[in-house]
Amino acid sequence: MRFSNLVIETSKTAPSDAIIISHVLLVRAGFIKRVANGIYTLGMPALKMASKIENIIRQEMDRLDGQEVKFPVVMPKELWEMSGRYYSIGREMARFKDRADHDMVLGMTHEEAAVHFAMNTISSYQKLPFMIYQIQTKFRDEPRSRGGLIRVREFTMKDAYSFHMTQEDLEKYYYKQLEAYNNIFRRIGMNNFIYVQSDSGMMGGKIAHEFMAVTPDGEDELVICSHCDYKANEEVAECQTDTFDNTNDTPCEEVFTGEAKTIEEVCQRLNIEATNTIKAVAYANKETGEPIMVFIRGDLEVNESKLCKVVRAEIIPLESTENPAISFGNIGPLANLPVKTIIYDRSIENRAGMVVGANKPEYHIINFKVGRDINIEHFHDVAKVKQGQRCVKCGHELTIQNGIEIGNIFQLGTKYTQSMGMTVLNENGESINPIMGCYGIGVGRAIASIIQNSHDANGMILPISVAPWTIHICPVRIDNEEVRKLSFDIYDQLQKKGIDTLIDDRDMSPGVKFADADLLGMPIRLVVSPKLIANNEIEIKIRKTGEVVIVKIDELYLKLDSIIQNLMEEYK
Amino acid sequence: MRFSNLVIETSKTAPSDAIIISHVLLVRAGFIKRVANGIYTLGMPALKMASKIENIIRQEMDRLDGQEVKFPVVMPKELWEMSGRYYSIGREMARFKDRADHDMVLGMTHEEAAVHFAMNTISSYQKLPFMIYQIQTKFRDEPRSRGGLIRVREFTMKDAYSFHMTQEDLEKYYYKQLEAYNNIFRRIGMNNFIYVQSDSGMMGGKIAHEFMAVTPDGEDELVICSHCDYKANEEVAECQTDTFDNTNDTPCEEVFTGEAKTIEEVCQRLNIEATNTIKAVAYANKETGEPIMVFIRGDLEVNESKLCKVVRAEIIPLESTENPAISFGNIGPLANLPVKTIIYDRSIENRAGMVVGANKPEYHIINFKVGRDINIEHFHDVAKVKQGQRCVKCGHELTIQNGIEIGNIFQLGTKYTQSMGMTVLNENGESINPIMGCYGIGVGRAIASIIQNSHDANGMILPISVAPWTIHICPVRIDNEEVRKLSFDIYDQLQKKGIDTLIDDRDMSPGVKFADADLLGMPIRLVVSPKLIANNEIEIKIRKTGEVVIVKIDELYLKLDSIIQNLMEEYK
Repeated sequence: MRFSNLVIETSKTAPSDAIIISHVLLVRAGFIKRVANGIYTLGMPALKMASKIENIIRQEMDRLDGQEVKFPVVMPKELWEMSGRYYSIGREMARFKDRADHDMVLGMTHEEAAVHFAMNTISSYQKLPFMIYQIQTKFRDEPRSRGGLIRVREFTMKDAYSFHMTQEDLEKYYYKQLEAYNNIFRRIGMNNFIYVQSDSGMMGGKIAHEFMAVTPDGEDELVICSHCDYKANEEVAECQTDTFDNTNDTPCEEVFTGEAKTIEEVCQRLNIEATNTIKAVAYANKETGEPIMVFIRGDLEVNESKLCKVVRAEIIPLESTENPAISFGNIGPLANLPVKTIIYDRSIENRAGMVVGANKPEYHIINFKVGRDINIEHFHDVAKVKQGQRCVKCGHELTIQNGIEIGNIFQLGTKYTQSMGMTVLNENGESINPIMGCYGIGVGRAIASIIQNSHDANGMILPISVAPWTIHICPVRIDNEEVRKLSFDIYDQLQKKGIDTLIDDRDMSPGVKFADADLLGMPIRLVVSPKLIANNEIEIKIRKTGEVVIVKIDELYLKLDSIIQNLMEEYK
Repeated sequence: MRFSNLVIETSKTAPSDAIIISHVLLVRAGFIKRVANGIYTLGMPALKMASKIENIIRQEMDRLDGQEVKFPVVMPKELWEMSGRYYSIGREMARFKDRADHDMVLGMTHEEAAVHFAMNTISSYQKLPFMIYQIQTKFRDEPRSRGGLIRVREFTMKDAYSFHMTQEDLEKYYYKQLEAYNNIFRRIGMNNFIYVQSDSGMMGGKIAHEFMAVTPDGEDELVICSHCDYKANEEVAECQTDTFDNTNDTPCEEVFTGEAKTIEEVCQRLNIEATNTIKAVAYANKETGEPIMVFIRGDLEVNESKLCKVVRAEIIPLESTENPAISFGNIGPLANLPVKTIIYDRSIENRAGMVVGANKPEYHIINFKVGRDINIEHFHDVAKVKQGQRCVKCGHELTIQNGIEIGNIFQLGTKYTQSMGMTVLNENGESINPIMGCYGIGVGRAIASIIQNSHDANGMILPISVAPWTIHICPVRIDNEEVRKLSFDIYDQLQKKGIDTLIDDRDMSPGVKFADADLLGMPIRLVVSPKLIANNEIEIKIRKTGEVVIVKIDELYLKLDSIIQNLMEEYK
């Protein structure tokens, strides 16, 4: 490709809404152009990168006997009514009426389409297991699109769906997918990613993992054990109960605490640690409005994802003053709180010598003992994991890092096959609902995450496995006939060898060309200049290491072959 | 690919709504599955075929310096307001409100997106000409989807947009695209296609061509000269004026014709030929409702596409009784017809001795002479071409055939760059609006049209350049260990050689396997059976010619190489 022909304009600055580095660089390099909130046109370099990523994904999916298919973007309401998601999903699903006034939706995921395709087609266990996948455009009306390609509304996604006769078979296959995902992310050059246990959210099912690019710009918090292999999204990370001295058996006593209301204020007033307090956090059932009260150790926060699962409902935070039942303030776990749903976090199990609210203004109770002063049947794990807490698996210290979700895999069970009525006959001639798994990767977000993980102050550093071009030729003084001729000779030669090459044939200063080469971040830069030609030489620079090699012209291709092979090693 | 794993179910019959052969075969072979009106899921074989077609398209587009990009499917209203098409396009464009109540559309074509992408990016003539293209999902809410993949609502399309400094440059490039289209359709195995002049419709611009698969199932009528290279869509085909004896100078005379109203009735009553009559055909301006009257030779029909262009408005047919101005019936071209817009077709120019309506019930006028009895300033060509008429270019006979549009190319001019305000500086530093061309191919329709052109009573006959698999292995008696082993050895060997192969590993009768092989239509079928093995032989059958060759096992690959090379020859 000739730079002079390329429909991109590089720039030294990014628009003010671009804060995250991959967004800044993608815009500055002209890879993407914003069309609307969370909607972009991908220019040629971004699309070439997407295609290379898609091909690696395809290879790994086909290795697992995947059959590539294409489901529609636009689907009729009926399909989503069968699974129940037409109603359970909110405004993130775009809907419209077609010209016959029929309700249609834009696919944001394709479980329904996959089951529709397989049902009535596959009728016997002999065809199972099988996996179908597509790489297709999706639209999800995100309330807050952000960060360029990090969170968009329209995106290209690989989504795969597997169908199995038994849970055992699904699990075996699921871990093969997990392995394939590891391969994919390594091969596309994601140099800092992990997978964590995750929430299955609106997909249904129980076991799920997310693949995460680790980056400070990530919105997800990841709980990672410093010692063992425990890794989980904060949304589902389990809390280890800390050990405390619970021998204090002094009877309860009401103490005046006046204006002190927050845990911090109460601790200061009574000169105690927050770990010796129990606080109340109020929520409401989003649908019914009924209050939900959580009692948790004063130094901990409630993990709302975990709480949702415990109460099996969507929840919203509630100011205690908003509900007359609990408007008295200083709420404590004393009996007779007029709230139907009360959740006790595991952090207060067996605790003694605690400070709790007295269920009336200006007073707290000290020396409260769980078990003695209140009888609690069930404790639940609804606390957020804190940096430095201990791992539930091995007891070592946990760290918290930020990440961007780049892929996810779910064990769906029979949620879709059952609701949509897909059955196959097993070996005994009985109808069963196949058990499903699903496996997604967002291609655009992969592009952004690769750049998050791989850039420097001058621009992107693109992995050779997915870089739009492998080689970027910078002719210095293109107006010099010798430079021009040699540059284009090399360009033609490389093209013939099947090496993707970009040639900067613009009549620009070396400074501008080198800056653009660094910004675009192709793995290998070649410089051709009058001075080098005089010595019969070419300069090779490796973007990743900064290494510069000067070679004789007739040694160029041999040297390039070895550099390319070397760079590819990592991504095989 | 193993047949036993393939998520398709072949069938002997097609659903009752499948009438057109490609639809019947695509459904019977399990290539596609209907999700809603005009919306299908493509199974693996159809998608593989689509990918091969797309790759051939890519090669030809890249040869013309095309840059592949990806525009969004979902676009904001504003983009389409700039070009004016938000309002000028009707319900065929799907629209919805996003969660922020913003009006969005689903792209059915991407001129606006292409200009948006290039404007403010490209600012100088030095970057022109350039061409950007995408292969992407589109949605067009067709009122009458039909024929499986022939006319759908959701489809994959390659759409390309070129930008030029001068009309001359556009034209030069346009004919390169025309050449590329010829290459594409030849290479994907469309064995009966032509290109014709066409209407530019809602795209704007003047010069346009359509590529048409010639098939009796096509809805478009194509006017083709039997002698020269004149070919045009009936919508724009020009009419040659026939020669008549116009010497009759007898004065007009009113004659009683009673109930005779239609041309046929009048001709019968007066014992004359329809070529000696002038009829009136009434239309109305769709927007204003104002009547439009056309006078045309009695044996011809009005071509509404051509009429629209002449009156520069959309029109609807009008019963003359519906409008009081012309409700008297027997309308003739006599002076003082109270209609503002009257169009005279070229077929009545200079005609003498004609029978025309008398503008009152029960009477006609004979011996009417155009020029003498009415003064007409302009004649227009608004007649439909009839089979057997003479070519406007060479005077030879015209034939009419049916076709399916498989591609189109347009010279757009500055319609979009002007309305959207895209300018670049020319060599003199002046701002000009670039001149655009656009070039489309529907991938799914190409699949259907290939099958329309290439099938027999047993199924599809897929061209080797786009067939999902090149070789289809049919092991007879898969339960025989020798058969199984040899079949899979060959399968593995072919896969290693990079030859797409399907193996029918189902435990089914040879009859079922052979019927499915014929139905799916892969270019080469291999048969492995105990009997053949006993003789150390394999059977090769070529789907296209029906030719059967028996080869010794150790000569198999050599023979296959030569057959494949031979079959590929046509599509290079």
